[in-house]
Amino acid sequence: MAITPYKQLETEWQRLHAFSGALSLLRWDAAVMMPRGSSDVRGEQLAAIETEQHALLTSPKVSRLLERAKAGAGELDEWQQANLREMSRQRDHAIATPVSLITRLAHATSLAEVRWAEAREKQDFAIFAPHLEEVLHLVRDRAALLGQALGLAPYDALIDGFTPGLRSAEIDTVFRAYSRRLPALIREVIERQAARPPLPIAGRFAAGKQRAMIVEVMKAFGFPFDRGRLDESDHPFTEGVAGDIRVTTKLDATDPFKGLLAALHETGHALYDLGVPREWRTQPVGKERGMALEESQSLLIEMIVCRSRPFLHYLKPLLEKHFSVSGPEWEVDNLYHVLTQVRRGHIRVDADEVTYPLHVVLRYGIERDLLEGRLAVRDLPEAWNNGMLERLEVKPANAAEGCLQDIHWAHGSFGYFPSYAMGAAIAAQLHESLRSRTPDLDEHLARGDFSVVTRWLAEHVHAEGARLTPPELMKKATGKALSAAAALRYLEGKYLEDAR
Amino acid sequence: MAITPYKQLETEWQRLHAFSGALSLLRWDAAVMMPRGSSDVRGEQLAAIETEQHALLTSPKVSRLLERAKAGAGELDEWQQANLREMSRQRDHAIATPVSLITRLAHATSLAEVRWAEAREKQDFAIFAPHLEEVLHLVRDRAALLGQALGLAPYDALIDGFTPGLRSAEIDTVFRAYSRRLPALIREVIERQAARPPLPIAGRFAAGKQRAMIVEVMKAFGFPFDRGRLDESDHPFTEGVAGDIRVTTKLDATDPFKGLLAALHETGHALYDLGVPREWRTQPVGKERGMALEESQSLLIEMIVCRSRPFLHYLKPLLEKHFSVSGPEWEVDNLYHVLTQVRRGHIRVDADEVTYPLHVVLRYGIERDLLEGRLAVRDLPEAWNNGMLERLEVKPANAAEGCLQDIHWAHGSFGYFPSYAMGAAIAAQLHESLRSRTPDLDEHLARGDFSVVTRWLAEHVHAEGARLTPPELMKKATGKALSAAAALRYLEGKYLEDAR
Repeated sequence: MAITPYKQLETEWQRLHAFSGALSLLRWDAAVMMPRGSSDVRGEQLAAIETEQHALLTSPKVSRLLERAKAGAGELDEWQQANLREMSRQRDHAIATPVSLITRLAHATSLAEVRWAEAREKQDFAIFAPHLEEVLHLVRDRAALLGQALGLAPYDALIDGFTPGLRSAEIDTVFRAYSRRLPALIREVIERQAARPPLPIAGRFAAGKQRAMIVEVMKAFGFPFDRGRLDESDHPFTEGVAGDIRVTTKLDATDPFKGLLAALHETGHALYDLGVPREWRTQPVGKERGMALEESQSLLIEMIVCRSRPFLHYLKPLLEKHFSVSGPEWEVDNLYHVLTQVRRGHIRVDADEVTYPLHVVLRYGIERDLLEGRLAVRDLPEAWNNGMLERLEVKPANAAEGCLQDIHWAHGSFGYFPSYAMGAAIAAQLHESLRSRTPDLDEHLARGDFSVVTRWLAEHVHAEGARLTPPELMKKATGKALSAAAALRYLEGKYLEDAR
Repeated sequence: MAITPYKQLETEWQRLHAFSGALSLLRWDAAVMMPRGSSDVRGEQLAAIETEQHALLTSPKVSRLLERAKAGAGELDEWQQANLREMSRQRDHAIATPVSLITRLAHATSLAEVRWAEAREKQDFAIFAPHLEEVLHLVRDRAALLGQALGLAPYDALIDGFTPGLRSAEIDTVFRAYSRRLPALIREVIERQAARPPLPIAGRFAAGKQRAMIVEVMKAFGFPFDRGRLDESDHPFTEGVAGDIRVTTKLDATDPFKGLLAALHETGHALYDLGVPREWRTQPVGKERGMALEESQSLLIEMIVCRSRPFLHYLKPLLEKHFSVSGPEWEVDNLYHVLTQVRRGHIRVDADEVTYPLHVVLRYGIERDLLEGRLAVRDLPEAWNNGMLERLEVKPANAAEGCLQDIHWAHGSFGYFPSYAMGAAIAAQLHESLRSRTPDLDEHLARGDFSVVTRWLAEHVHAEGARLTPPELMKKATGKALSAAAALRYLEGKYLEDAR
């Protein structure tokens, strides 16, 4: 029997998968191992493989095969059909933007990134404004073309590039709920916490000892060190593929929790990447389902599982063993208060889980207004500052701690921010479902038996690969529509009622 | 003006260069960083990029462009013509062997490598013999096809794949001279050395201190740590490209010289790769000129420059500083004797520079006889043992320390061995020329001023890129035809006359 068009497509995607793995390793190396002076050389290598990948994805051959495979889709099983859908989606995304526009965007964003850094350093938005203007024009063109090709509104088309199948309608529902409840909750939590400030953690914590403890905890979560690595980099990240997964963290010599929690955040990502169905690992349907779900996995581990009393019961003897610490500040209750302090701050990446969603809600509103022409670039700083005041009751002293704090827009990454806060909502909803079916969850965590968490996630999230949209997946995993309800219940429970 | 076919070819080779750099990084990572269990994944990535590279090199487009560029070669300058010649040579090599034969070779050699390891462990040649037979058949086919395509004798075609432009006629001349002189020289040297055995070096030398000393010495040789790395691996090697060059070494806790000299050997390779003309770095003419010349650069640094009294005068205070050592065994004269001991041994990779060429001469004769049908695989162990007895007056106790010691033939690498010993001849001839023009060479070395060596090599060897054949390059650099004369003068001078 002749090989079917669908099977031929699988072979093409195996090559794309191998290219992706190579690219991922080249990026990992650039951040972790590469000599400082070698970025020009690495840029050439990345560009050559990316070009090849794009050429393959947009080739007439692949388009022809997709046509023919769709015509015969009735013969395919459910997973194959989902795989074909994902292939088609990837091709549509790749082909929708002409190479000339991609090139112009690449030039504009690389210049904008430089000027953004300069503007931030000099706290002068005017340096960045014309470049953001240029990037915004090009992103608008791109969003329009993508939207046309995918049959989506322009902004939804951008979101779809980061979290396939997620739409702004779902984001609006979740973010409206956040906006309604969080400002009052924050006020209340801060008031309560002010009444019982935790004892501070002080000391020097040697890098080697921190690494040893982190490895021990990661092993308890099932991170496979025979097929993965832990290293250090300026910004923690996860790269690689199932079969060779690499996470990084950043250690702080004065704080034994920063490096640990960053590594566990990345471990959440890694476990997702490792948990997708093994037999589909080279195919689009055998990948994680986009940024929002990725972030849900990392936040569920870092924020919900690890910033909890049961986890700290498990961790306390490890802290004592690795750092020989003792005293009242190292008791579980105090550590818990240290790791769950809520503060109104200017900077998103430093925010706790209660204030964090509002940072994202602000960016979401602003980037839609920018993209859809309701806000002019020159008015961005004012809109930002007003939004911060309204939502978090703080006013940035300058643009560097205001609208210049994140690189995303200089990058051209519009539609990316919502995944962060959507991830938190998804994490809480998954956790609520897991907990309702696992009454003794906390006892497991306190013993360091995390398999009860990781197995549930593997079964209900990871094993689905990219077969479903995030709303479909949530319905299947939790029996409920995706909403902010669980997230708000979780935050209220943790930060108000759980005031032991 | 339209872009010329030649210029289009340069663009294609820029892509091939980027792919090579990516492959090199993936190989480096596999040997130095990759988790143990991930070789399957890495294999997929390497294969995908290699396939792409091969497809590009053998594409009808490239063939057409080569035709048209050759027709207009009169318009090109000397370097461009040489570049076009190299492009053509690479394409001819790639296209001469059908993909089906490459696939069969890949399967046969990967099986043969496994059986070779088993046979070596069990000291039983019979386990390996049928697999070597199969590999040999396929290599013979490949050599015949390559020879036809390149207009060369089959064995010469194989050599050309490792050291372009080197022919067996030149190897014969050099190896005959080695065979005539070395056996007697070895006898004489061993007799002299027996009269003054060096004091042994003993102690434990911490890895961190060894690394610090090695980095200091590599810096003195001009290794660019802002665009390169030093790491450890099971077998020392050099990977990467000019702009991101990576060498490895293997440390021995009981011997501070092994790791140092291995790193300096690799530094010789790295300096060559870095010294090729910058403006041609992405093109075939801007690469090193094959294995024999590569090996000449590493041997010149490791064996000639660093196993010398002047270098040890430079090194002695570094040893004292890094390891706090002192005593008669650490005096320059004793160290020199330790590092220049000559021993009759069975194992090539452990051999000193006086006996080493005979190990290679033996393999060269045997692999030609195998390939050209004068020696049957079943008679290999006997031919080997007789050859060792005749040349080095030792008889291997078993096949593991005899004809099973090297993996090369299992690999299908016929025509590779001669580069090792040709490299030694080239190194000595270059060194003689350098020394004749630099009367105060030893004073420079003793001060740790190695630029007098590296600048001369950069000018006379590295800057030529791949423009000349090795014999042409030797004529230009030294004014003399390539021969073993300088190597024999060097060995006699060092091991007989220089008996201070």
